[in-house]
Amino acid sequence: MRVIAIDPGYDRLGVAVMEYRAGSEHLLYSTCLLSDKNHSLPDRIHVIGDAFLGVIEEYTPDTLAVETLFFNKNVKTAIGVAEARGALIYIAKSSGCTIYEFSPQQIKTSVTGYGNSDKKAVIDMVCRLVKGTPTNALDDEYDAIATGVACLATYGRRI
Amino acid sequence: MRVIAIDPGYDRLGVAVMEYRAGSEHLLYSTCLLSDKNHSLPDRIHVIGDAFLGVIEEYTPDTLAVETLFFNKNVKTAIGVAEARGALIYIAKSSGCTIYEFSPQQIKTSVTGYGNSDKKAVIDMVCRLVKGTPTNALDDEYDAIATGVACLATYGRRI
Repeated sequence: MRVIAIDPGYDRLGVAVMEYRAGSEHLLYSTCLLSDKNHSLPDRIHVIGDAFLGVIEEYTPDTLAVETLFFNKNVKTAIGVAEARGALIYIAKSSGCTIYEFSPQQIKTSVTGYGNSDKKAVIDMVCRLVKGTPTNALDDEYDAIATGVACLATYGRRI
Repeated sequence: MRVIAIDPGYDRLGVAVMEYRAGSEHLLYSTCLLSDKNHSLPDRIHVIGDAFLGVIEEYTPDTLAVETLFFNKNVKTAIGVAEARGALIYIAKSSGCTIYEFSPQQIKTSVTGYGNSDKKAVIDMVCRLVKGTPTNALDDEYDAIATGVACLATYGRRI
């Protein structure tokens, strides 16, 4: 299994490409894709989507891992994130990926062993577990890597 | 302007391809695309998206018209609709379309002259205004045609 894991958004999109090899998770590539705040939401989804498609074409993952979406207090942001998420799922499926979704609790449990870990504990464990994790990344990039860890822990070792 | 107008959804997607010619709106094609309720949301978005892309490739519109999204009481449905909407916007933009969004009030005013018209009044006027409108379509298809009327009324006559 080669997984592309994402922390979806139209403003910042965390992306991580990972594999499970020789007993541990390997990070092949990670980034945080950004879009221009001055552009319209359709333009931002298009730019983020095309950059995401570029990563898929370069790394040819067979699986997309994505966190399940929960509503936050800002409804407008939630709609935008859902729209970006739908575009990214469509792109990944069109590229042949199988889609797996994980709840925040599943992701935290996979990374730290505890479903209510705070953000700092998750980032610390991601850096220790996953070879090649950058040290000064944005939270979205760490969240994507954590989602990839959950996917490899759940499905990656069986394949 | 050749507009593809949609009433977005992952369960049913209303689609209408329209032009303004010789003083009136012409419907080139309309349909209501359906997805299988037994499939996962990512699968349904993928199926609906590919069918939508097929219509774009056949009719080569230059514009996408879509209703602005408002939250309804069913949060899960709202997330799904937003995800489908994002995928469809991405597909249309990737195919070179300009995106225009319209509020329900703008659409009703364009069709009936009154922003609080009920659904029946909108459908009656759509059938009278737009040559080629089918008589026994699903509401989603009429809503797409109504959105196309709003787009052509706002932008179509200037181009």
